[in-house]
Amino acid sequence: MKIIRQVQAHDLDDIATGGAVLGTGGGGDPYVGKLMAREAIRKHGPVTLVDVEGMADDALIVPACMMGAPTVMTEKLPQGDELLNAFNQLQRLMGRPIDAVLCGEAGGVNSTIPFAIAAAAGLPLIDGDGMGRAFPELQMETFTLHGVSATPMVLCDDKGNSLVLDTVSNAWTERLARAATIEMGGSALLTFYPMSGAQAKKAVVRGTLSLCARIGRTLRETRAAHGDPVAALVGLLGAQLLFHGRVQDIERRTEGGFARGRAVFGGLDDWKDSTLRIDFQNEFLIAERDGEVLVTTPDLISVIEDDTGMPVTTDSLRYGQRLIAIAFPCDPQWRTPEGIALVGPRYFGYDLDYRAL
Amino acid sequence: MKIIRQVQAHDLDDIATGGAVLGTGGGGDPYVGKLMAREAIRKHGPVTLVDVEGMADDALIVPACMMGAPTVMTEKLPQGDELLNAFNQLQRLMGRPIDAVLCGEAGGVNSTIPFAIAAAAGLPLIDGDGMGRAFPELQMETFTLHGVSATPMVLCDDKGNSLVLDTVSNAWTERLARAATIEMGGSALLTFYPMSGAQAKKAVVRGTLSLCARIGRTLRETRAAHGDPVAALVGLLGAQLLFHGRVQDIERRTEGGFARGRAVFGGLDDWKDSTLRIDFQNEFLIAERDGEVLVTTPDLISVIEDDTGMPVTTDSLRYGQRLIAIAFPCDPQWRTPEGIALVGPRYFGYDLDYRAL
Repeated sequence: MKIIRQVQAHDLDDIATGGAVLGTGGGGDPYVGKLMAREAIRKHGPVTLVDVEGMADDALIVPACMMGAPTVMTEKLPQGDELLNAFNQLQRLMGRPIDAVLCGEAGGVNSTIPFAIAAAAGLPLIDGDGMGRAFPELQMETFTLHGVSATPMVLCDDKGNSLVLDTVSNAWTERLARAATIEMGGSALLTFYPMSGAQAKKAVVRGTLSLCARIGRTLRETRAAHGDPVAALVGLLGAQLLFHGRVQDIERRTEGGFARGRAVFGGLDDWKDSTLRIDFQNEFLIAERDGEVLVTTPDLISVIEDDTGMPVTTDSLRYGQRLIAIAFPCDPQWRTPEGIALVGPRYFGYDLDYRAL
Repeated sequence: MKIIRQVQAHDLDDIATGGAVLGTGGGGDPYVGKLMAREAIRKHGPVTLVDVEGMADDALIVPACMMGAPTVMTEKLPQGDELLNAFNQLQRLMGRPIDAVLCGEAGGVNSTIPFAIAAAAGLPLIDGDGMGRAFPELQMETFTLHGVSATPMVLCDDKGNSLVLDTVSNAWTERLARAATIEMGGSALLTFYPMSGAQAKKAVVRGTLSLCARIGRTLRETRAAHGDPVAALVGLLGAQLLFHGRVQDIERRTEGGFARGRAVFGGLDDWKDSTLRIDFQNEFLIAERDGEVLVTTPDLISVIEDDTGMPVTTDSLRYGQRLIAIAFPCDPQWRTPEGIALVGPRYFGYDLDYRAL
C-alpha cells in the first residue's frame, strides 16, 4: 500500500472547503460530512489516505456516498449507526472483506463522508474519486465509463430501512435509488460500484482528496497572510475568471429529488454592463454571459465570495451577495464521446454541444 | 401435509372467476395470472393445494404477489423468468428451502399468480391467503395483525432489476416498494412476509382458493343449467343485494401508483329512482345509495353482470352496462380494532366509522 498521508480531524476543514469548490454549487453542504467525519476520526483515529496504484489488482474497493437533494441533506443529519450499516451489508453481500474505501464524488458532502466511513470501518481511503467534481446522478461516475456496475448497491435511511439493488444498468440504479431516496425523505446513505483494484486503477480520478485539502489550505493561508484568496485559487486551479457581480435573482425548486433552478448576476468592474446566468441541477451546469454560453458541464463552474474566495453553494446564494464565478477543466475522461454522452449538456436537456474550456 | 386437491390447468378458469369476485373490482385482471399459471402447470404439472393446519410449525412459508395498478398490470405481461427470480432470491436470503407457497391476496391477478410460482418451484400451495379478498396496499395483510414482518422482501421487474427491502415497519415496506414499482413502470413481482408454519396457522384466512374455485364453478354450472347465476352467487356467499342499475358515470385516474376513482349507477327495477355511488382505490371501498352509506371496507363490495353473474373490475366498467352490486362480510380478523385501523374507512381518508354488514 502506498500511503500518502494520515488525515486527522483538524485536516477536515480544508478538505470540506475544497470539496465545496469541486462541488460546483451542489453536492450538499460539506459541513454535514465534516461533522460526521470529525466525530468518526475522534472516535476511531486518523484515516490513512492511499494511492490507488498501490492497491492489489484483486483488492475489493467500495465507494460510499450520500444521495439526495442538498437542500434536504443539510436538514436531515445522518445518525452514527446508519453510516456503517450500508457498508457492512455490502461487505456481507460480496462475501469477502473490503480492502479500501473510495470516494464516489469529490464534491460537497461526499468529499468528507468517505473519511467518516473509512475511520469507522478501520480501512484506508483512496486519494481520488469517480467524478473529479460533483454531479447530480449516480450513474455519472468514471466507473460507468469503464463498465463497472453500480450494483449490488446498498441504500440505507436514517430510520433503519435498507434496500439492496441489483439492476440491469447504472441508469436503472439511478432511477430506482432516486425513487427510494425521495420516499425515504430526500436523502440516504449508500455503498455501490464494488470494484477490483485493477478496475479502480483504470477509472479513478487521481488525487482529488489531496486537491480538496490543497484548495482549502491555499484559501486559508492566503487569507491569513492578507493576500488575494481569489487570485490564489484561480492560480492553483488554472481557472478562468468568468464574472464578478451581485446576485440579482435566484430561482430554485426541489423537483424529482433534485434542487433545480437558475441564478442571475448583475456585473461589477469590467462586467458592469453585463449579466451572468448560471443554470443548475444540484450542481452548476451552464454559465451564459449576455446570452453567450461560456462554460458547460462537465467543465467545472464554481461561485466564490469576492473577498474571501470561499465557495458558495446554490442553497446559500442570496440576493445582493458579491460573488465571483470561475471555471476550470474537468478530468480528461469526461471529454471523450462516452463521457460527454453521460454528463454533457445534451444529457441535461440543453440543445448545446460541449466546447472544452 | 394435508392435501386438499390437485389443481390442474383446466381448474384455473373457475379460480380466476372467483378471484375476480373476491377482487372487489381491483386486484388486477385475473386473466393475466391465469395465463401465467396455466403455462406453468402445463410445463411443470399440477399444483398440490394443502391445508395450513398440516404444515409443521417450523416450516418456512412464503407468499408471492404481483404489485401495481391493475390498469398497468394487464398491459405489461410478466415474463416467465422473473416469476421465479424473486422467489429464489428470497430463498437464498433465508438460507433454507421454502416449504410452501402462500397466496398474499385471494383477489384478482393474485388469486392465480401463486399457482404459477408453486408449479414452477415444485412446491405445495396453501389453501388460504392474507386478506380473504383484495386490498390496495401491501401492509394490509392479516400477517401484519400477527406481527409478521413484510421483509426481507424481494421485488423484481420485467427488465431484470431487483430490490431486496429490509424495513422498520410494514407501512415503510409499502411506501418503498410502491415507489420502486412506480419507477419500474407500474407493476412488479414480489415475495415477502416469510413466516413459520406456526405464524401461518394463526394468520391465514382459510380456504379462500377453494372458495374462488367454488364461486367460479357455481357461476359456470348455473349458467349451463340456464339457472339464475346472480341468485346462485348471492346464495353461495351469503351476500346482500345492494343495487341493480346502469353505469351512468365512471371517473378514474392513476395516482400514486393506484387506480382511483368512483362509479355512479342509475337504478333499475326496485331501485328505479335511486342512485348508487361506489368509490374505489384499486378495490371498491365505499358504497353509498342516495347519499346513505351502505357498505364500507373491509366488507366486500362486488359488481357483477346482471345476466351472467360474472364479476366486473373497475377497469372494465363502461357507460350503460347493466350491473348488480352485492356485498358480503369480510374475515372476522378484519373486524377487530387492529383490523379496522389497518383497512377501515378512516385509513382511506373517509370520515366514517365501519359498521359491519
